Amino acid sequence: MAPPSIAQQLAAKQREISIAEFFERNRQILGFDNPARALLTTVKELVDNALDAAEEARVLPEVGVTITKEAEDRYRVVVADNGPGILRREIPNVFARLLYGSRFHANRQARGQQGIGVSAAVLYANLTTARPVKVVSKVEEEDAAHVLELVLETQKNQPRVVSEDVVLWDRTHGTSVELVLKARYQRGRQSPLEYLRGTAIVNPHAQITLQEPDGTRVTFPRASSDLPPLAKETAPHPYGLELGELGYLLKASRRPNLAEFLTKDLQGVSARAAKEVLEAAALSARSPPSGVVGDAQERLLRSLHGVSLVAPNAECLSPIGSLLIKRGLRNVLGELRPEFFAPPVSRPPKVRGGFPFMVEVGLVYGGGLAADQPIQLLRFANRVPLLFQQGACAITTAVAGMDWRRYGLDQKGGAGLPVGPMLALVHVASTKIPFTSEAKEAVAEDPELDRELTLALQAAARHLRAHLSRKSRRDFASEKFAIIQKILPRLAEKTSTLVGKPVPDLTPVVTKIMDVVNVDTSVEAAAGERAATVTVTNYTPRARVLELFLELPPELLGLARFAPEPAGTDAELGRAWWTLPKLGPNGTTGLAIRFPKGTDVEANDLDWYIAGIDEGRLLGADPLPGDWDVRLPRAVVEAAEAAAAEPEPAPGNEESEVDYDAAEASAGSRDEE
Amino acid sequence: MAPPSIAQQLAAKQREISIAEFFERNRQILGFDNPARALLTTVKELVDNALDAAEEARVLPEVGVTITKEAEDRYRVVVADNGPGILRREIPNVFARLLYGSRFHANRQARGQQGIGVSAAVLYANLTTARPVKVVSKVEEEDAAHVLELVLETQKNQPRVVSEDVVLWDRTHGTSVELVLKARYQRGRQSPLEYLRGTAIVNPHAQITLQEPDGTRVTFPRASSDLPPLAKETAPHPYGLELGELGYLLKASRRPNLAEFLTKDLQGVSARAAKEVLEAAALSARSPPSGVVGDAQERLLRSLHGVSLVAPNAECLSPIGSLLIKRGLRNVLGELRPEFFAPPVSRPPKVRGGFPFMVEVGLVYGGGLAADQPIQLLRFANRVPLLFQQGACAITTAVAGMDWRRYGLDQKGGAGLPVGPMLALVHVASTKIPFTSEAKEAVAEDPELDRELTLALQAAARHLRAHLSRKSRRDFASEKFAIIQKILPRLAEKTSTLVGKPVPDLTPVVTKIMDVVNVDTSVEAAAGERAATVTVTNYTPRARVLELFLELPPELLGLARFAPEPAGTDAELGRAWWTLPKLGPNGTTGLAIRFPKGTDVEANDLDWYIAGIDEGRLLGADPLPGDWDVRLPRAVVEAAEAAAAEPEPAPGNEESEVDYDAAEASAGSRDEE
Repeated sequence: MAPPSIAQQLAAKQREISIAEFFERNRQILGFDNPARALLTTVKELVDNALDAAEEARVLPEVGVTITKEAEDRYRVVVADNGPGILRREIPNVFARLLYGSRFHANRQARGQQGIGVSAAVLYANLTTARPVKVVSKVEEEDAAHVLELVLETQKNQPRVVSEDVVLWDRTHGTSVELVLKARYQRGRQSPLEYLRGTAIVNPHAQITLQEPDGTRVTFPRASSDLPPLAKETAPHPYGLELGELGYLLKASRRPNLAEFLTKDLQGVSARAAKEVLEAAALSARSPPSGVVGDAQERLLRSLHGVSLVAPNAECLSPIGSLLIKRGLRNVLGELRPEFFAPPVSRPPKVRGGFPFMVEVGLVYGGGLAADQPIQLLRFANRVPLLFQQGACAITTAVAGMDWRRYGLDQKGGAGLPVGPMLALVHVASTKIPFTSEAKEAVAEDPELDRELTLALQAAARHLRAHLSRKSRRDFASEKFAIIQKILPRLAEKTSTLVGKPVPDLTPVVTKIMDVVNVDTSVEAAAGERAATVTVTNYTPRARVLELFLELPPELLGLARFAPEPAGTDAELGRAWWTLPKLGPNGTTGLAIRFPKGTDVEANDLDWYIAGIDEGRLLGADPLPGDWDVRLPRAVVEAAEAAAAEPEPAPGNEESEVDYDAAEASAGSRDEE
Repeated sequence: MAPPSIAQQLAAKQREISIAEFFERNRQILGFDNPARALLTTVKELVDNALDAAEEARVLPEVGVTITKEAEDRYRVVVADNGPGILRREIPNVFARLLYGSRFHANRQARGQQGIGVSAAVLYANLTTARPVKVVSKVEEEDAAHVLELVLETQKNQPRVVSEDVVLWDRTHGTSVELVLKARYQRGRQSPLEYLRGTAIVNPHAQITLQEPDGTRVTFPRASSDLPPLAKETAPHPYGLELGELGYLLKASRRPNLAEFLTKDLQGVSARAAKEVLEAAALSARSPPSGVVGDAQERLLRSLHGVSLVAPNAECLSPIGSLLIKRGLRNVLGELRPEFFAPPVSRPPKVRGGFPFMVEVGLVYGGGLAADQPIQLLRFANRVPLLFQQGACAITTAVAGMDWRRYGLDQKGGAGLPVGPMLALVHVASTKIPFTSEAKEAVAEDPELDRELTLALQAAARHLRAHLSRKSRRDFASEKFAIIQKILPRLAEKTSTLVGKPVPDLTPVVTKIMDVVNVDTSVEAAAGERAATVTVTNYTPRARVLELFLELPPELLGLARFAPEPAGTDAELGRAWWTLPKLGPNGTTGLAIRFPKGTDVEANDLDWYIAGIDEGRLLGADPLPGDWDVRLPRAVVEAAEAAAAEPEPAPGNEESEVDYDAAEASAGSRDEE
């Protein structure tokens, strides 16, 4: 017999590879490439699952993480939650089988989507310590909890039950998972603590505690008792659907005909659009869906992509929302006492390859944040912090691709992470986050996503710029005031003494030198309510007719009671405006806003704009932006015209003036959108 | 009946996820996230497979890639090879089933290891165009070729044969694969052309042709007809073995007892080491391997990790080798005419988590490479170019983490990619490359890998620094020569005319002003052979006794014939040395080296060092490095001592002197290793 040929030798080696074998060998792909990272990934997968489960059951999540040291490089991790529990028959597959789960086929936002994470942690624990995972789970309708010990059989990717018991548990429902793995515990960057802190920021409705190996107990208390709205499952949208996917949908459809398939199995297709699609594809509305194959399928897809459809709806998404972003940041960063929380930006949902997504951004500035370091970037995807692969992530690319010098930060060459005491929180929510790998540590780049990220970052950065510009103007004004108050009286006194005359009233002189209209805002608790007071003072030598504009989060506008009542409001955009009484030199007027007890509002939430005076004479407020499409009262328009014709205000001192100009120039340059 | 509880509702949604469904939805992980990248990934997977197959069959690979446009966003890709062919029964699984392959379980270097790539391309083609893959394959022992059309059934991850035929094919063996997919063809960065050019560089034994959609035909001809040695399969090494892996090996072992298991199923364990291991673990040499479980397994692993074992052997690796790296680079970069090819560096193999790996580096400098741009970095893993995710790759981290300013390149702050007319080729070879995702585009970071990368880069960079320093000294000398030759004769003439005396012999004056020993190398073809000539001229006013040292790739040293014979050689390190005859002022001596016809050698391959003179008086050669452990003849030692006591050579002109000093300073600073 002839010896086997090369082709035969090679064929003899061909074998199926179990997905578990594959990931065991390529564990870096899942985030298990070294003991420190393995511990973090394990905590992350277990906590993400606990939060998903509690939210699905509409329970405010309570998650306890306990990490104890078993040996030099061996740790025990226990994560317990108050979720709905898992039925006995599902426990083995959920915890010890890769690619098994409930969320992969659902078209809605969830932390876990792949059916890999928890079983991967079990696989890693089995591999490194040969110890089973121990799961305790109780569902509401049963009296006792099931306790199972499981291993994942790598070559078959199947669970094996090692031991089983039933115990009483002092919870109505919940799950506890215990793993022993090769690990290293660390604090600081890329640690379980950092991950849980990030999780607490974007999940202010969750209560999370961590018991560290040295016994330290860290609690992230709940900052909001509103559960985020449950993301709804939605039908796929035809935009971005590939031919093969359309084929599956047609084959699997139970609708009697194509017309119903188009309007009911897909979203965004109205009856009229369906008619148009079918005509363009030369298909009959009455054909059975499964009969549409080959060339007919291609024609159908082409006409679906060619017709204008209703945009995908966003009910499948669960954004954090501006108020909770701010609350979450304040809850966790409180000790750093940042001087400024920019009003968080939530962009409207968009679509990418058929999957809806949206972007949210929060910026925090100053206080204890390091001024000489690159800004801190907190990346989140579906409410999960991303701690690794920052350089490979679309979020980083978007931040580094913006020219932050325009917004008042240092940035070498106008690219790369800017330097300054800033923290940027960026959240991407989607029914399908395009992660660069199964470890879910970085979002893959995509032009549509990049555009939304950039728009959201620019919107937040404009608030920062306004803050920095107000701050620099206020600094300049205080400096000027200080000088005037120190020197003028002494000058007047000396001169009066010399010429033997009484000391004159200096107010008109001060006014002439200051030459600004000042807006001051303070917010404080008053009789159980929150009260904001705004004072406008005319420190110019002329009378002024001004229009005052307020912008604040729309939720807050709904709660506010104003005195006096505004001349007009825009509930959707969160705007209100007033025509102020004519103010003579040194004249002062004000208005008061009251919010119900407990309202989360501060001076920074209220952005003030003024029309009727040129911006060089404005302090504590910005000139009305050009894109506000409002009609000003005639008196204000005339005042504005007169103000534009006035000579420039006199400079105070050379050095301050230079700063002032720079701040103005930066505030004046608009970024293209 | 009570309504289903949340746990029951959730349980009802639990489902197995097929690996094909998973990757279809997460195609960005496999490198299919947009049409341009999908085309590149498809070409890459097919070509990688073709090269692997041909090399396994010990055939010099010939690979033809044809890309044609079918519609606006639809292309046909055909990749044909001269490999061994695939048996009919294996074709469906090889091309239309994820996680099926021959190389995953083999512990040796290969391009494809995952059993995913080609089937992923088929999956993407099915998904986007609903067209099957067409495979033609012929094995040597059959007369006809099999032609199969296949689709991958996503929900089952199984192949389905759509059509089948047998045809005559004018090849003795080989495979051709044809796919139609949604794609975009581009040239330039991250294009099929760039990928094939990179492949040709590190696979100089392959002949690759590309037919572009516009009909352009690009050929990368074979630059070497030596097949790389076939990487051998080796047993796993205990270093880095995890408990679970040891468990599998023990369970699967067919050895009668533990002693044989240790010495035969593992590598690096000698009989003596096995005895030591068993004693430390308190296990009997005669126990059957499968009986070692639980605590005994843990003890065995602990003692295996505690005992000193033979380092893993490198037969499972197939490095490119210094000569072929250079040949590959020259073959492909020829048109840019770089001024300098640094002798490529191949580091000895190391181990990482039980898997052997090694690093190779080639540097090219000058010529048509852009001087004002960041250097070009060509990353390779197991002879495959990596074109995406540069920022997330351990290779980039190592390059950006070095202070290149020490080696004569610009680099802001001593970190990040340096700027300059340089191209760096870095190749990582391993039985298991730790890729960051299945798309195999970036190598995950790892301290051991980082160390090897840095050492290899530093070694290559030292050659670059020597080149730049020689170049700057030569520039300075030519400038000095030019000035001396222009001014001195005119000065002498004028002076002689004025004083009415004959023009004097200027040679001693020139010598005094130059005050250098110059080494000149030229390589040319002579009578069918390659001949190198080296000339050493003493342009100093004193007699010199010098020792001349040559370093060249060891392969070349073996081929070289020297006249006169060297005083000594070191075959392993590629070194030879001569004591030169005493050279008076203006004295010249030389030596000749002949290489057989066709030897690939140039002046840059020969690095010259000289002892017996201080480095300030040396041109075209470097002073002998301190780490050369050689004993110098007494006359040379005395000459060196005398030279050290000489006054510094007189400066030529101020400006040049500054450059010269800078070059010296940079050449003098040693990097820590």
